[in-house]
Amino acid sequence: MTDQDHADRLARIALTWLVEPGSWAVHRLVTRLGPVATLDLLLDGGAPEDRLRCAVAARIGSADPRAVSAEAMARAERLGARLITPADSEWPVRVGDLHRLVLPGATRRVDTETAPPLCFWVRGGWPLDEALDRSVAVVGARAATSYGVHVATEIGYGLADREWTVVSGGAFGIDAAAHRGALSAGGVTVAVLACGVDRPYPMGNSALFDRIAETGLLVSEWMPGAEPLRPRFLIRNRVIAGVTLGSVLVEASARSGATQTMRRALGIGRPSMVVPGPVTSAMSVGAHEMLREYGDTRLVTGVPHVLEEVGRIGADLAPPARGPDRPGDQLDDEAALLRESLPRRGVVGPDVLAARAGLDIRTALRKLALLEELGLVVRRDGGYAIPPRRREPATPGNARAGGGTGVSPPPTGSPRRGPACTDG
Amino acid sequence: MTDQDHADRLARIALTWLVEPGSWAVHRLVTRLGPVATLDLLLDGGAPEDRLRCAVAARIGSADPRAVSAEAMARAERLGARLITPADSEWPVRVGDLHRLVLPGATRRVDTETAPPLCFWVRGGWPLDEALDRSVAVVGARAATSYGVHVATEIGYGLADREWTVVSGGAFGIDAAAHRGALSAGGVTVAVLACGVDRPYPMGNSALFDRIAETGLLVSEWMPGAEPLRPRFLIRNRVIAGVTLGSVLVEASARSGATQTMRRALGIGRPSMVVPGPVTSAMSVGAHEMLREYGDTRLVTGVPHVLEEVGRIGADLAPPARGPDRPGDQLDDEAALLRESLPRRGVVGPDVLAARAGLDIRTALRKLALLEELGLVVRRDGGYAIPPRRREPATPGNARAGGGTGVSPPPTGSPRRGPACTDG
Repeated sequence: MTDQDHADRLARIALTWLVEPGSWAVHRLVTRLGPVATLDLLLDGGAPEDRLRCAVAARIGSADPRAVSAEAMARAERLGARLITPADSEWPVRVGDLHRLVLPGATRRVDTETAPPLCFWVRGGWPLDEALDRSVAVVGARAATSYGVHVATEIGYGLADREWTVVSGGAFGIDAAAHRGALSAGGVTVAVLACGVDRPYPMGNSALFDRIAETGLLVSEWMPGAEPLRPRFLIRNRVIAGVTLGSVLVEASARSGATQTMRRALGIGRPSMVVPGPVTSAMSVGAHEMLREYGDTRLVTGVPHVLEEVGRIGADLAPPARGPDRPGDQLDDEAALLRESLPRRGVVGPDVLAARAGLDIRTALRKLALLEELGLVVRRDGGYAIPPRRREPATPGNARAGGGTGVSPPPTGSPRRGPACTDG
Repeated sequence: MTDQDHADRLARIALTWLVEPGSWAVHRLVTRLGPVATLDLLLDGGAPEDRLRCAVAARIGSADPRAVSAEAMARAERLGARLITPADSEWPVRVGDLHRLVLPGATRRVDTETAPPLCFWVRGGWPLDEALDRSVAVVGARAATSYGVHVATEIGYGLADREWTVVSGGAFGIDAAAHRGALSAGGVTVAVLACGVDRPYPMGNSALFDRIAETGLLVSEWMPGAEPLRPRFLIRNRVIAGVTLGSVLVEASARSGATQTMRRALGIGRPSMVVPGPVTSAMSVGAHEMLREYGDTRLVTGVPHVLEEVGRIGADLAPPARGPDRPGDQLDDEAALLRESLPRRGVVGPDVLAARAGLDIRTALRKLALLEELGLVVRRDGGYAIPPRRREPATPGNARAGGGTGVSPPPTGSPRRGPACTDG
């Protein structure tokens, strides 16, 4: 990492401390000037808006932003957390779609709380982008009923069982049930927090957070030590909607924060899915309101319906661009089919692969040999797998690849698969 | 009634016996030739379609259609039931909208089971059109859960309590719950049957049918004595959808007949409303399918949502035309407002009326005197009411007005209002 990179990272941290994340004013400056110049401008009192200037002035009084950033980095290192910025390969590009967020009913995009994040703090072994690649948000009421907890657990389990990552907010009720369902299927789950990843809120879920950090990810825009202030939950919600391929609402009372996440999903054109419930339950009132008021909201009753929605989007969208020339670009149809038939994680035998791709075994083996030569599949344990992705060289902001900076190792008891540590 | 009228009625009865109701082939002939000539044509083997000719031939072997008709009339008279045809003033004109029924997904209208009825057999004191004027269908699963029964009862009660008529099919489960809810609110409920009104099916609901006949109506296209054959339920369903201002589905399993009623409602552009339920319940699968598959279906959670739908339609539609010159047509705004402020049933004081119409009491009283003179309101019990409608002179087909032909009298214990017997 260059000095410039390092300065950029520290500036991004300082900016999230100076001004709450989601500010379009800050985001516009960063886009135009870069984070370092933006920070300098703000610290010199040169913010283009009064409101922003006042917010910055209030903060500066309490501490030196650059010292705060350095302290946050040190704290993260001790904790085994890492900072991720758009410069890192594991930055979840999809969150950039928040650029086009226009809330349903609003005529123009809202000027607060909705700009894309400047950085993420991450705790856990998975590369963030990989964990979020096939992900669905499952959100809902804290004061969930046993019905809601049952359904959220089932959906969390079912999605994880089909190798989808379950993203939620780590709250009591529906959030926790969705995380737990995913964990019990041995799947990956990501808790997007409104506070530091070292002090996940609520405390009552701390055992759950420990398990998530071991096999999934804790993610936050706020630096370690940050408190779960009330407005931060709403700011956080746009990330849950933005990083996933779709959001599912299970139970919400009449004016629930979870419906806000759903409106953010709708606002960027992601599938917004709602599980209905008994009309006699106050905890389904918000869910039914969503279905009644937002025509684009889909009623779903379980994982197959959810996959119908996000699967369609997945198929419609082109794969995220990763650069101009990739070896896979020139594959013939049969090789491409085989490659697409590989599980995202784990190993599969050539016969199963051939069957999945609808090819005879001879053709399959020939094409697999070709794919292996291209480095697009690896042979392992008598079967084939997707090769580990090449990572950036170790950086302070990429602790996982940095080796020995305290990242939790894959849990030995992980039921089906561990984090894909790919330092090799 | 002229001899021609009488012959028409007998011919309509014979036609429903010869060919199951809902046949477009028969309906087209009746529209072109009238019922008598249509019957003659069919009895002479002159049906324009092979299928129709065969159906007729099969029936004729068993009895003489004209004798069957006469026997049905006699049986109805003994029972206190009456025949209603489009020539009768109480014919529910709205059922004619079945003319424009095109089933969702179908490119043209279905040629069987969906043509408008030729006649109705009715048991009970209310004029059929009046009972159905403000009516909503509530239908659903026979094997309802306690949740469904609870919701259907609540909706039946709530609609009846707001002076809406609850129409259903008299089946076990949701149908019965909706009827019972309406009855317990002292309201009007109509059971549309797929068999003779003298032998309502199922037997297990016979106490319920007795109560419905006392304060509401039993209605059927099939003559007294007709059996509840399986295909008749589906034929019957179009009437439930057609005579009401909208249909509400409460619980339906995956392939429920109740969803067919809903599709018929959609097919003629009536509000099709569905109550969701727990996704864990097999009895809500069909309801959720409706909501997912038919974009025009509205999710409703209770009576206020239902009234939002049917109220809107009610307001959009012009009042049914009843003839060119009516005294009300020339009313000034204030008088018209007062008239519209009268409850459909019952008496209301002038102060309340004035307040409802937004008029001062002097103006209200002056206009009410004018309305009374025109015969558009009547004074009763210190208040004002809508005058009883003038009925046709007594006919064999209009037993209610015929006096002493066995119509059930209004039950003395009717909680809030009795049938509007208007012989005076």
